[in-house]
Amino acid sequence: MSETVPDQSTIEAAHKLIAPFVHRTPVLSSGFLNELCGAELYFKCENMQKIGAFKARGALHAVLSLSPEQLKNGIATHSSGNHAQAIAFAAKRVGAKAYIVMPDNSPTVKIRAVEGYGAEITFCKNTPEERERTVQQIVHETGAAFIHPFNNYEVIAGQATVAKELFEDVDAKLDVIIAPVGGGGLLSGTALAAHYFSPETKVYAGEPEGAADAVLSFRSDKIEKAPYVKTIADGLLTYLGDKTFPLIKQHVTDIFTVSDVEIINAMQYLWERMKLVVEPSGAVSLAAVIRNKEQFAGKKIGIIISGGNVDLGKLPF
Amino acid sequence: MSETVPDQSTIEAAHKLIAPFVHRTPVLSSGFLNELCGAELYFKCENMQKIGAFKARGALHAVLSLSPEQLKNGIATHSSGNHAQAIAFAAKRVGAKAYIVMPDNSPTVKIRAVEGYGAEITFCKNTPEERERTVQQIVHETGAAFIHPFNNYEVIAGQATVAKELFEDVDAKLDVIIAPVGGGGLLSGTALAAHYFSPETKVYAGEPEGAADAVLSFRSDKIEKAPYVKTIADGLLTYLGDKTFPLIKQHVTDIFTVSDVEIINAMQYLWERMKLVVEPSGAVSLAAVIRNKEQFAGKKIGIIISGGNVDLGKLPF
Repeated sequence: MSETVPDQSTIEAAHKLIAPFVHRTPVLSSGFLNELCGAELYFKCENMQKIGAFKARGALHAVLSLSPEQLKNGIATHSSGNHAQAIAFAAKRVGAKAYIVMPDNSPTVKIRAVEGYGAEITFCKNTPEERERTVQQIVHETGAAFIHPFNNYEVIAGQATVAKELFEDVDAKLDVIIAPVGGGGLLSGTALAAHYFSPETKVYAGEPEGAADAVLSFRSDKIEKAPYVKTIADGLLTYLGDKTFPLIKQHVTDIFTVSDVEIINAMQYLWERMKLVVEPSGAVSLAAVIRNKEQFAGKKIGIIISGGNVDLGKLPF
Repeated sequence: MSETVPDQSTIEAAHKLIAPFVHRTPVLSSGFLNELCGAELYFKCENMQKIGAFKARGALHAVLSLSPEQLKNGIATHSSGNHAQAIAFAAKRVGAKAYIVMPDNSPTVKIRAVEGYGAEITFCKNTPEERERTVQQIVHETGAAFIHPFNNYEVIAGQATVAKELFEDVDAKLDVIIAPVGGGGLLSGTALAAHYFSPETKVYAGEPEGAADAVLSFRSDKIEKAPYVKTIADGLLTYLGDKTFPLIKQHVTDIFTVSDVEIINAMQYLWERMKLVVEPSGAVSLAAVIRNKEQFAGKKIGIIISGGNVDLGKLPF
């Protein structure tokens, strides 16, 4: 795994490498939401990406960057969410074995999806320590390569291709691009892509009030944990890593928090008005724009919808 | 209103006329559904069209085809569904008054959407006779122009632009294109578009078993009503008109019926796998392809997703 921040040519090469295996997701707009926000919104629909989230890009790039020697014992990770599916998907693409550690209370639908890609699942208790311990044991026993969900420069370079495509596919120059932030893989990739491919575009992030570690870290200038963790946006619970935080600090203009009510409202707009199945985390960027619409009035804004993996039987509306 | 079947140049002109006001909806694909069907599927997402359905195209073309003289007293129609919103939307676009007759048991969400476009709603009892009588009375009193939801050549030419765009936006030559059939506006437009712009492409339709008038008419060679009407696909309950039926008879290869269970299954694939909010009627084409997948194996198939207006609080799964 690389220890160097991806440069422009690395991200261009990452894009070429993964393009045959991922969707170039559509960029959509909504007259209703433009009017509501008084701005021009361009939605990059990574909910329609392979495995239903942008995570397919970073995982695939990390796996494709491994040598046959590194791949021969398989790859391993721990995740209850989209990264688990992404690694299983990426491993299947290159014919490698995937070992996924999942909490024993993971939803059946997510377990089935990971199994569907032929990955081997090991269940453990749902604590960060148990997940870490279990995956380290698998790595020790099998020699599998561990791929971190966000604190990994190959993963970050893969996630950067979301914003790169958005800049390429919108005719106008974007004034603003906004992504949700959890561990910061997507946000730091977005920040790098703006820096290299659209330096006039300001980068913002949306974060749930109930997992507000990134905004705290951003203000205090060191990685902090959230004061409390309670939000419907279950994809954004983690805190920043030592690779993602400096990139965010350097290239991001500001981070906005949004409440769960605001997230659910934004989600409902995306479902009802744009006909998009979006998970709560995927609606956080729009929620942040709506909450701060005076600040963004008249701007051209790229909004990243990060994912759409949601249990249809358990909708919040 | 024209009494001549739209020719190629009429459809081209219709497309130019409406293009500034409607979305060029995306064409999407799904590795999972390609594998399930053993075919290459290209989904034309009219659920993402203005007002959430293809009906915006036909209504807009019909309204834009009226002279200022014809428009000055407004336009009128009756509909509980997408055509009501489409006419209200089209009238607002040209600054005309819209009179919409809606059944008094219409869902609040649909009433609000029509009101949102500034249309004047008149409620009546939910029988075809009462709806017809009420709208005729409004036309008599106001001099408004009546626009039929499907049995109207301007409407048909507008709906033809769905398939025209699909042919233009798919790099490969489509072997098959399939649309749902209710009154036949979309299907006859699709059939004409294939005839003019992609004559090698065979045109098929999907129809609910619980509203199986079109397949009956297609076989018996005269317009028939359904033996019974009971289906979740509430957009496809009407029977064919004297303008749509001959075009369907002439240019459509076959019509397949599907059960409500098959419609719901297809709908669930579109939601879960493609992250698309699709109404039951909008999933009928895919249901027909899945049911007849042996016949379609190895083909390149254009599938029209007709609409996405569904009550999120009342999902069938």
